[in-house]
Amino acid sequence: MAQAEIGLIGLGVMGSNLALNIAEKGNKIAVFNRTVARTKEFYEEAGDLKGQIVPCETIEEFVAAIRPPRPIIIMIQAGAAVDQQMDLLRPYLEKNDIMIDAGNANFRDTMRRFDALKDSGLTFIGMGVSGGEEGARHGPSIMVGGTEDSWKRVEKVLTSIAAKYNDDPCVAWLGENGAGHFVKTIHNGIEYADMQMIAEIYGILRDGLKMSAAEIGEVFGQWNKGRLESYLIEITEKVLAAKDPIAGGPMVDMILDKAGQKGTGKWSAIEAQNMGVPATGIEAAVAARSISSFKAEREAAEKILGLPDVPALSVADKAAFIKDLESALLAGKIGAYAQGFAVMAAASKEYNWNLPMPTIAKIWRAGCIIRSQFLDEITSAFTKAPDAANLIVTPAFAAMVKETDGALRRVVSAAALHGLPVPALASALGYFDSYRRGRGTANVIQAQRDFFGAHGFDRLDGADSHHGPWGSGLNG
Amino acid sequence: MAQAEIGLIGLGVMGSNLALNIAEKGNKIAVFNRTVARTKEFYEEAGDLKGQIVPCETIEEFVAAIRPPRPIIIMIQAGAAVDQQMDLLRPYLEKNDIMIDAGNANFRDTMRRFDALKDSGLTFIGMGVSGGEEGARHGPSIMVGGTEDSWKRVEKVLTSIAAKYNDDPCVAWLGENGAGHFVKTIHNGIEYADMQMIAEIYGILRDGLKMSAAEIGEVFGQWNKGRLESYLIEITEKVLAAKDPIAGGPMVDMILDKAGQKGTGKWSAIEAQNMGVPATGIEAAVAARSISSFKAEREAAEKILGLPDVPALSVADKAAFIKDLESALLAGKIGAYAQGFAVMAAASKEYNWNLPMPTIAKIWRAGCIIRSQFLDEITSAFTKAPDAANLIVTPAFAAMVKETDGALRRVVSAAALHGLPVPALASALGYFDSYRRGRGTANVIQAQRDFFGAHGFDRLDGADSHHGPWGSGLNG
Repeated sequence: MAQAEIGLIGLGVMGSNLALNIAEKGNKIAVFNRTVARTKEFYEEAGDLKGQIVPCETIEEFVAAIRPPRPIIIMIQAGAAVDQQMDLLRPYLEKNDIMIDAGNANFRDTMRRFDALKDSGLTFIGMGVSGGEEGARHGPSIMVGGTEDSWKRVEKVLTSIAAKYNDDPCVAWLGENGAGHFVKTIHNGIEYADMQMIAEIYGILRDGLKMSAAEIGEVFGQWNKGRLESYLIEITEKVLAAKDPIAGGPMVDMILDKAGQKGTGKWSAIEAQNMGVPATGIEAAVAARSISSFKAEREAAEKILGLPDVPALSVADKAAFIKDLESALLAGKIGAYAQGFAVMAAASKEYNWNLPMPTIAKIWRAGCIIRSQFLDEITSAFTKAPDAANLIVTPAFAAMVKETDGALRRVVSAAALHGLPVPALASALGYFDSYRRGRGTANVIQAQRDFFGAHGFDRLDGADSHHGPWGSGLNG
Repeated sequence: MAQAEIGLIGLGVMGSNLALNIAEKGNKIAVFNRTVARTKEFYEEAGDLKGQIVPCETIEEFVAAIRPPRPIIIMIQAGAAVDQQMDLLRPYLEKNDIMIDAGNANFRDTMRRFDALKDSGLTFIGMGVSGGEEGARHGPSIMVGGTEDSWKRVEKVLTSIAAKYNDDPCVAWLGENGAGHFVKTIHNGIEYADMQMIAEIYGILRDGLKMSAAEIGEVFGQWNKGRLESYLIEITEKVLAAKDPIAGGPMVDMILDKAGQKGTGKWSAIEAQNMGVPATGIEAAVAARSISSFKAEREAAEKILGLPDVPALSVADKAAFIKDLESALLAGKIGAYAQGFAVMAAASKEYNWNLPMPTIAKIWRAGCIIRSQFLDEITSAFTKAPDAANLIVTPAFAAMVKETDGALRRVVSAAALHGLPVPALASALGYFDSYRRGRGTANVIQAQRDFFGAHGFDRLDGADSHHGPWGSGLNG
């Protein structure tokens, strides 16, 4: 029997779906799972794909079934379990075999694992896979980090299973060691920001305009036909339209408003902080989820503080206001994505990855959770201006900022005056209005720092004098 | 000759001033510096304090000069230099001697150093000292972390040199190992937020109302007589009033708007992220400094995007608007401090420090950079309600929020509509409006997460059903 082209360990939801995808695209795949019963069950359920699957009951059998150099996908819970699985696998591997972590690893763990194999003859790929179960089964977006040689070994298989955007496969080699997982982490951070801004707009419609879930769903449905066309907007329409099978009302109205988080938003924020690159949209989104998780505190706070003492939101022209919300959401996206790409650009320099920005945007156009028309515009903008300091100074996006920032202003203003929290949208506006201003207000901060700490400042005229006339030595 | 009560290594600006303060308050102090020339110079300049100072030229002499158990302050550049100094010192120390790091250490390094001494018979204090040169010389705020026994050995000396607020010394033992340095880090994070919000208000007055530096200085001078009375407001008035000795115009107008940062704001943000506690005011402040540092990018962006295309800010009643700015700044402070104290409360649990919140507020009332009348009100609020979930639900601060949030809304709205960036002020408003709302918008986020990732949600009615009716297994 011909050998498998690739192997996969971990037949949980994601692993199973990925394995079936690989098999379905004509690749022979060996599979292994910690519990044999699950392997057997998986194989039985594979139907007419069985011919492409080699179910293995031992690691030895599994490794022998794969054509060297062997690419082996590990799709298990991120963290210590991955290190344990790698330790169990290693003794059976041969020179040039490739262990591939396809879970949501912290890129620092990926770099550690990559480095640990340095003199072993083995190598490591850290692979970000986005798109959930659906993506894994029918076409994810795949972000690969590792050596170029190991990429070449897996390119054909991964290309066959990746999502396609107008026939372009949504998979790419992004750089060495942690590049793939870092980019996946920022994808998730941007996802947090996208989802938070949708929630803020939903809040304005629900609590400001007092619209029902169904009505709000229709608004998102309309928006999905325009510039906001994207998977997240599409599913927002669907979840808002859904009925609660138990109590009968709108499903969302019965869902507890405590958002869970698995850590990638937080990691994105921390890495941005480490590199001194603003990611305030992601930070606002993470904070909003944390605050949502303090449900009991919020309920107690509402009793003590009351809801904001503000007039009800009333708009003269509802259709125009809704158009403003659409444009504001677009403007907010621009801010969040500009920040996300700036974080990746900084990491690219910091870790010598040489991340290809147009390619990242390209492979996010389909398969992944943030997939959208908008990402095709980003691809275009970065392709034309690969060295742009920031997305918002590329011609297309500068024009889009100028076209939509008015709406963002009006929406942030209305939300502020009517007690409706819009932390992520407001952070995007603050970002634009700070970034596009050549003369900022940090001069007064520098003056204060020099006053109390003699930290020194530079002068606009470049003169070689760096302290203010506040008094000699000690002050006050 | 009677032995010194305490020793100090590191006669740079901070160390020299601290040593003089210690000597002046009647404590005999032994001093040592890496370069002997500096030690001699320091002693010569000590004037009539010489009698209290024992200048030492060798570590051996230095250690012998101090009464055991010996508290030895190390006041040198944070980082590896401290580890090196500790290594040089250790061989000469005896059981129960106490090394005290009084620099701006990362609390994790403090905990590492504390633990490393565990079986050595020696111990370690991580001490946060705030107030700059002035504070070091005449009365800093001091935040002590270490064992209770080591605190007792240093309490008298530190109490004699600390700033006083109505005779209450601004020094306290806050907990074990890293407690002192953690609290100092958050002090600095709050300082960043305070300074950023002052800069945002300054920007509204300068770029919105087109006021001169002198005029703006007068406004801050007026505010320093009211509820915003604080060191930072006081020095803002001073820096705005100062003239450039070289070119003659207002000093601040000649200062380059690129803010420097030494890392404590960033550390605060990262630790808050690690613990899942919102610190969006600090995050906004750090981001604003980072954006200010991209001066060339901002100038280029202004050429490409132009300043915001907005009408000029025009206020019918200037005095009323300025009163709104005052109240908005107060509201912003409430948000930033509420977040800072919440971060410390979380760290207290995380690291088992049992941090005394009222005490922290107490010792910040004088000596430190953020000293203010406002901190006396916080002391009061936490003393009356030590278990409050958040500062803003204590009676005094809930009342203050309700009294000032209207002004914050109007200011955030006006800033948004007129292109004036107010990221920190806006984050405070978003924080209030999210925290005081029992029914938030994270229900839609939970619905989306369940739709694309089957992450599950809880129901308001508590029924044991955790997934939506979006379709079975795979979606779309």
